[in-house]
Amino acid sequence: MSSDENKNFEPLVVLQFSSKTPLETKEWVIKRLTANHNEDQGAGLLARYETSPESGDNMIVIGAKLSRLLIGAEELRIKKRYKNKGLTEFLISDIDHFENSENPENFLLQSEKQRIIWEELQTLHPMSNEHSVPGVPTKMISPKNDTLLDILHSLNFIANLFPLHDKDDIKLMEHDWFKSIRAMFAPQDIHQIRNYFGENVAFYFAFLEYYTWALVPTAILGFLINFWPVSDFFKYSLLCLFNVIWWTVFMELWKNYTNRLASQWGTLDEEMFERPRSLYYGEPQLSPITKKEEPYYPLWKHRLKKYFISYPLMMICLIISLTIYFNYCRIQNRTDAKYPFDGSLTFIQVKAMRMFPSIGYSLLIGQVNLNYRRLATFLTDNENHRLQTSYENNLTAKLFIFFFVNCFAGLFYQAFFMANYGNVTQLLTSMLIVNVVILKFTEQIGPYISKRFKKKQLAESVPTDAHLSNSVKQLKTLLPFQGTYGDYLTIFEQYGYVALFSAVFPWITICAVINNFYELRADAFKYCYVYRRPFAQPAWNIGSWHSAFDILSSIAIVTNTALIAMQPSVRHYFSSYNDVEYILIFVAAEHVLLAIKLAIDFAIPDVPAEVEIERVKNLYESNQALRSQRSNKTLQAQKSITSKH
Amino acid sequence: MSSDENKNFEPLVVLQFSSKTPLETKEWVIKRLTANHNEDQGAGLLARYETSPESGDNMIVIGAKLSRLLIGAEELRIKKRYKNKGLTEFLISDIDHFENSENPENFLLQSEKQRIIWEELQTLHPMSNEHSVPGVPTKMISPKNDTLLDILHSLNFIANLFPLHDKDDIKLMEHDWFKSIRAMFAPQDIHQIRNYFGENVAFYFAFLEYYTWALVPTAILGFLINFWPVSDFFKYSLLCLFNVIWWTVFMELWKNYTNRLASQWGTLDEEMFERPRSLYYGEPQLSPITKKEEPYYPLWKHRLKKYFISYPLMMICLIISLTIYFNYCRIQNRTDAKYPFDGSLTFIQVKAMRMFPSIGYSLLIGQVNLNYRRLATFLTDNENHRLQTSYENNLTAKLFIFFFVNCFAGLFYQAFFMANYGNVTQLLTSMLIVNVVILKFTEQIGPYISKRFKKKQLAESVPTDAHLSNSVKQLKTLLPFQGTYGDYLTIFEQYGYVALFSAVFPWITICAVINNFYELRADAFKYCYVYRRPFAQPAWNIGSWHSAFDILSSIAIVTNTALIAMQPSVRHYFSSYNDVEYILIFVAAEHVLLAIKLAIDFAIPDVPAEVEIERVKNLYESNQALRSQRSNKTLQAQKSITSKH
Repeated sequence: MSSDENKNFEPLVVLQFSSKTPLETKEWVIKRLTANHNEDQGAGLLARYETSPESGDNMIVIGAKLSRLLIGAEELRIKKRYKNKGLTEFLISDIDHFENSENPENFLLQSEKQRIIWEELQTLHPMSNEHSVPGVPTKMISPKNDTLLDILHSLNFIANLFPLHDKDDIKLMEHDWFKSIRAMFAPQDIHQIRNYFGENVAFYFAFLEYYTWALVPTAILGFLINFWPVSDFFKYSLLCLFNVIWWTVFMELWKNYTNRLASQWGTLDEEMFERPRSLYYGEPQLSPITKKEEPYYPLWKHRLKKYFISYPLMMICLIISLTIYFNYCRIQNRTDAKYPFDGSLTFIQVKAMRMFPSIGYSLLIGQVNLNYRRLATFLTDNENHRLQTSYENNLTAKLFIFFFVNCFAGLFYQAFFMANYGNVTQLLTSMLIVNVVILKFTEQIGPYISKRFKKKQLAESVPTDAHLSNSVKQLKTLLPFQGTYGDYLTIFEQYGYVALFSAVFPWITICAVINNFYELRADAFKYCYVYRRPFAQPAWNIGSWHSAFDILSSIAIVTNTALIAMQPSVRHYFSSYNDVEYILIFVAAEHVLLAIKLAIDFAIPDVPAEVEIERVKNLYESNQALRSQRSNKTLQAQKSITSKH
Repeated sequence: MSSDENKNFEPLVVLQFSSKTPLETKEWVIKRLTANHNEDQGAGLLARYETSPESGDNMIVIGAKLSRLLIGAEELRIKKRYKNKGLTEFLISDIDHFENSENPENFLLQSEKQRIIWEELQTLHPMSNEHSVPGVPTKMISPKNDTLLDILHSLNFIANLFPLHDKDDIKLMEHDWFKSIRAMFAPQDIHQIRNYFGENVAFYFAFLEYYTWALVPTAILGFLINFWPVSDFFKYSLLCLFNVIWWTVFMELWKNYTNRLASQWGTLDEEMFERPRSLYYGEPQLSPITKKEEPYYPLWKHRLKKYFISYPLMMICLIISLTIYFNYCRIQNRTDAKYPFDGSLTFIQVKAMRMFPSIGYSLLIGQVNLNYRRLATFLTDNENHRLQTSYENNLTAKLFIFFFVNCFAGLFYQAFFMANYGNVTQLLTSMLIVNVVILKFTEQIGPYISKRFKKKQLAESVPTDAHLSNSVKQLKTLLPFQGTYGDYLTIFEQYGYVALFSAVFPWITICAVINNFYELRADAFKYCYVYRRPFAQPAWNIGSWHSAFDILSSIAIVTNTALIAMQPSVRHYFSSYNDVEYILIFVAAEHVLLAIKLAIDFAIPDVPAEVEIERVKNLYESNQALRSQRSNKTLQAQKSITSKH
């Protein structure tokens, strides 16, 4: 094999070292990456320097030969379509029976190739006789426990590590996704998105689309009902009943759809075979499942940390945050009373004095939020989750609770304790404006401008743009991928306003629909052109976000019945009842609605029948294989016994 | 093989024909039972007449040779302990590696042998060239669709079909279970029960025991708190909070324990591979899973029947039952007013007149209940469930809802609408007395006496008792097995009183504990000596009874907070608040309790970690087997291709 062949490969992944990385270390990393898979326990990949005028020798690109990628695909149990059959785990020896295998270069998707390299990088260790990092003799390593990436991270030698975008694939995708008028109303091709970004991102877009369509009937009903000449009570309760049933059915159907997608993408049973996170640590032990050595951390320690460190600290943070909020309310009220519009001060002076508490509160709560986010990440790291999904679910849950309390505590307080509808309307309006204008800007328009600016800068500093390789361009112009967390949070916040207050303020839903039709395309653009490509990550559902939405829709029943009960027009409608009876009627109604929600949850099966059949079929097949394997083994054993005697 | 050997086998199952069955049909059944498994599509079992002076030639006993049973065990995927390993599906070719295989006669449990015969009976068809029943030429049959049992049932030819009790096994079991003083306090040996009765019955006893122990802390707390000199409010709310947390944790731990038992008994994944019920009908189609022909009934038809026939009819029955109840209340009140104790009539006369409505109500509701039970069975049959578990769950759910409404509607009405505590206490007391005295009698003591009586009768009619075979004796003296349904219902009813009203009436719990310690042993006696043995039925949990208990404990939160709020002493404690505030405080408290329940449900995992590991391990093993099988196949295919060329 010529050295030339080893250098001119298709780059798949970019690794940028920080500028302080010694040359020796870089050479060592390349050697480990390219070392033979079997002999030197290397990754068996291809790697070369990608020199650019600015970053010098700090960037390497990584690729792999097709044969190496196929081995990786078999190891990762990647599923491919079998001829005349459904998805089947890929096996090299069986490659001829898979669809598209006559064209081996395109057999694996680019995102799959990148994922294979990524998994390989995560499990790459130093050679077993290496005990210090070349170039950094003071850094001692344990070749068995430390992976190469752990070591480089702990030395802060990695500046960036990301897979490369593919312009042709994006061109194919963007027309139907966001680049045409037609795309604004046509459904997304979710399978194309999954093929390019992986299941994790695809589930986000699938959910956003599904959720947006689910909003439409609520919005239409909320709009039309205004023109119907019936009593307020009837309007509100119809809307409320409709919302309860509709959103429960929606969440159940979404679960159904999720399972169908996961089944089509072959990730439905992936959950069981998930490999430990690379950051999971513990004593190496033989795994009872795979019989290979895997780190093992005692469950009781994990639980101890979770229940006695994480949860109490979270509670303290919540209390701090609520204390700050209520103190702000108190100070604001006192300030308002101290500076009345009575002419002793000018209008502007009063307004300015009154703004002080708000400013102080905003500054303080911003700090608390930032620190809480750091603390949550630290605590979840510290819990040492074995699986990536469990790590993410726990982090999401922590952030979700805090976010929920912070975001809606004000609205709750105003709506239910102060019964101040003016304030609620004002707060809702201002929050939606903040959401649309400020968040949209920081989220989408901001990065876009900064990207433009960077591109311009780049073009100025390096006039020969054409000479720049694709990888250097992407490193310079694209922002690091942030994960889907922030995007889910945006939908979640919106759903919060829609679900919790929609019976009384139906216009929120209409705003949300309009916003989401735009948001979906803006996000699509962002993922394609603003951020670097993420590594494809297998997923089988949207994780704890589902629970978060589910909890929110239960809370929504409580808030909506309460809001309806608090409307003066409704109270008037029930004027023949006294206060106690009136409250009991609404409490009873709330319980009936909760029971309806529960009954619907119960009645709709989570897994659609055909997915269940597919699953049992696979199980049955492998079960049969195990039986025949055992029969064969015994037969051979008997043969060998009889031949010996 | 001598004919003698075929006649002198250990009888396992008894089949009694009705007296009108023609001899020819009986001979035909025996021929089908004993016909060769492979050649004549027979069951390959052993069968002989068991003649008795009374029943004549109407009874046959069925057994099987060991080799036939082992084949059946392999077909049914019965799991046995593998040497140095956990439970593994039994394979004849691999028998040497199983524990206890050096002693082949005792390798299979008797209950397993009986289950194998039972499954064989259920799938036994007429020979493919038989188109009418011998002895009943008018009865046309379709050999492919009708099983032998279906045909016999439709002709009403089967009087009894049951497996035989084993006196030695019972003797071994009873000492530690109910026959000694020690047994009253020692835990049951649930595995022994499972080995004898099968998983279905074992789960009932496991649940009853678990539930009884769970009652103990509630009973103790409810008793001790009476002596604590604090306010009523504090007592009640402590008890209520404790109950919410305790019962939620209990239900979750029970789920955990269920999964552990199912894993130890090898039924955890049985659910997926469950075979269709023998009564399931539909067009024969190739099963997508096993690739064998199985009946198939369209899902939409099943759903249509469920949602548009069963559910509406159930609603109508509920409405009828409630109408009857409220009319009874009205008439009772009117009668009470019409016949006051004012001296115009004697005390006895008044009492007698006042009793008329109650008697009428009891008679009427008894009829409604009976008919509803028939209707529910008919409707569930009509829904044509594919699986036995789904059939049972649907039947249980139907009966549960009706039962719940009937049983507790009166208490609810008295407690919450009439706020009549005297009546609630009276009702609760009378219901408990009815429960203990009347139900216990009809359930346990009644059958016992009738059994005694029958035995005596038998001894009189046939003086030479020693000559009677075991099978004839069991047929004559034991009652047909009724299923666990009635027993679960008894616990459920009791849990209803305990959960729904315990915060205010803690003495119910104490009664329940005492009752259950007795009930468990009485039930054990009943299963061993009063009823015929049931066929062992695989189970992995207690089915929809779990949901029933879970729903009840949610409702309990609502009723308990309401009951506490309605206590005059508690109202007095909150006398500084007005009525509206008072209600809102309790509504808020109720919501907090519901949230706590939800959070606990969420936090405790359903499947214990070690069971999950065991499960994934099995999956991984069979998955690996499938991979290596596919590799081998390809290798062989390649070899055959190269050898041909």
